[in-house]
Amino acid sequence: MTTLLYFEDLPAGTVLRASRPVTLDRDAVLEFARAYDPQPAHLGEEAAAASQFGTFCASGWQTVGVTMRMMVETMPIAGGGMGAGVEKLNWPRMVFPGDTLTAEIEILSARVSRSRPDKGVAQVRCVTRNQRDEVVLELTSTILLPRKRTA
Amino acid sequence: MTTLLYFEDLPAGTVLRASRPVTLDRDAVLEFARAYDPQPAHLGEEAAAASQFGTFCASGWQTVGVTMRMMVETMPIAGGGMGAGVEKLNWPRMVFPGDTLTAEIEILSARVSRSRPDKGVAQVRCVTRNQRDEVVLELTSTILLPRKRTA
Repeated sequence: MTTLLYFEDLPAGTVLRASRPVTLDRDAVLEFARAYDPQPAHLGEEAAAASQFGTFCASGWQTVGVTMRMMVETMPIAGGGMGAGVEKLNWPRMVFPGDTLTAEIEILSARVSRSRPDKGVAQVRCVTRNQRDEVVLELTSTILLPRKRTA
Repeated sequence: MTTLLYFEDLPAGTVLRASRPVTLDRDAVLEFARAYDPQPAHLGEEAAAASQFGTFCASGWQTVGVTMRMMVETMPIAGGGMGAGVEKLNWPRMVFPGDTLTAEIEILSARVSRSRPDKGVAQVRCVTRNQRDEVVLELTSTILLPRKRTA
């Protein structure tokens, strides 16, 4: 059984670490690239050799997707989180097929919504690292989550 | 034949409109959600009814992916663009299975890289709309692209 989380369960300062790292296999890298980011660096070794990256690597948007899945599994919000927006997103290093990623989530701030008092607003920072503990993604976003007791 | 674009082809003020809109079908919405954003709103009508969204809708990250594909097709950068980071990303409206999306891309600024004079740095704004011309995504990001003549 998964325990679903509410606004009150995630005060500012909470830090959660993904319990289940995710390995990005080669087929998944190619499949994502073909569907959502068909640029040469993400379409196999040969195409990637002539790319700006120079080497076959995963789409940064796939790294975001894998991170999102780890966030959903690690911090299962009752009714699902509702993304209000992203304040910061960058990719300090490439992710290669076969890399194993893990994410750490920190609640930077949390407050009751002024316009919707049955909701909380949290700013969440997520840092994703590879198997060498190098940071591959930094994502700061704002999400809405339900309160336990609504007015 | 696709004409590949270089820094010099995309001065500030350039506006490009996706030539091929993308329709997000129900199966694609479910497939993406299961892989990258398994929250109730994205897993079918029944699960979504009890979600914060209250209705079955696509993951916002899939909207980003579809937008990315339109950007790659509409603005094919020689060697592929290299994302340096995202400054702004939000989702003003939900995207529903069956929606048809189109993207408009504007080059906000463009300059030669100081640290890598063979590259250009462009800030790009992308606005994605549905078939009712409603904005579903706003994305401002910075990309590196190659110059035609390197020093």
